[in-house]
Amino acid sequence: MLRDDVTAAIRTAVFEELAETGFARMSVEGIARRAGVGKTAVYRRWKSKLALVLDLVTAVAAQGLPVPRTGSLHGDVRALLEVAAHALRHPVASRVIPELLVESARNPEMAQAVKAVLLDSRDGVAAVVVREAVARGELPEGTDPDRALDLIAGPLYWRLAVVGGDLPEGYLDGLAVSAVAALTA
Amino acid sequence: MLRDDVTAAIRTAVFEELAETGFARMSVEGIARRAGVGKTAVYRRWKSKLALVLDLVTAVAAQGLPVPRTGSLHGDVRALLEVAAHALRHPVASRVIPELLVESARNPEMAQAVKAVLLDSRDGVAAVVVREAVARGELPEGTDPDRALDLIAGPLYWRLAVVGGDLPEGYLDGLAVSAVAALTA
Repeated sequence: MLRDDVTAAIRTAVFEELAETGFARMSVEGIARRAGVGKTAVYRRWKSKLALVLDLVTAVAAQGLPVPRTGSLHGDVRALLEVAAHALRHPVASRVIPELLVESARNPEMAQAVKAVLLDSRDGVAAVVVREAVARGELPEGTDPDRALDLIAGPLYWRLAVVGGDLPEGYLDGLAVSAVAALTA
Repeated sequence: MLRDDVTAAIRTAVFEELAETGFARMSVEGIARRAGVGKTAVYRRWKSKLALVLDLVTAVAAQGLPVPRTGSLHGDVRALLEVAAHALRHPVASRVIPELLVESARNPEMAQAVKAVLLDSRDGVAAVVVREAVARGELPEGTDPDRALDLIAGPLYWRLAVVGGDLPEGYLDGLAVSAVAALTA
């Protein structure tokens, strides 16, 4: 394998091990085996399984979510909810995210990485959606993008990832209307 | 120790082990040691650490949250947010809840127990708050208490337990206003 291929194979293996085995039980040996590389190939790149997972989280964060740009706050929120619901229902995401949150409670480095992913950055999707809604006069100046993300993502995350509930027909439509009402209240 | 004291000591030990060691790493031996009882005292009551944790979750669920009954939807929501924020910021809760969610992703029995706690029952706090708001004409007939809980608890949970953010001055006041707007949108 080429060097970049090895790195990619290891990253995929970390993701799969996290989902199947969980952070507490997974090992660098297991990751190397799954990636089809030697343990030293892993240790040459990362010093521990924590370092591996932090690197993965940072890589996912750098990609970010696509900014919808539908031309209205309601349209943008509805589009964001669609993408988020799709991601949260992915079986790998639904297993990996809780693993990361558990490790965050034990490890300040992990907590910082997760926070950096979830707290929307200046150019994050919520920041752009809010900025454009402010420019259109749909939200007041000074609207906090992190608070906006609480109101948009929170109810969906609670339902899908915490309670383990389903999404009844029309749920996302109703949630988009509710989130806009919450944002403009 | 009397029999009830032993049971109580074991339950406390489970809670502490979950918070400190985590579900994956904790053992019945460790729980027994912390409770100051023999391993057989644990196994006489519960067949595994999973059974122990399920029992604990069910016991906490049976207590439930106090129903606020302030006389208005806004007052009830504000009071609920206060109680929930207090619970979510408790260091033990903030470690135990993610542990339970991780295990839920791996274990259908645990998923069912957590769902039973979080999906509000017929007499759960959200059901009562919604029923009384409907009776006062503040919410339409047929308002779904589970959806109401998504809109009330979701943003707070996202901020405190997922992102690991703080609660700025006035945050809960604003969230109560937003949640009522979301509920009545």
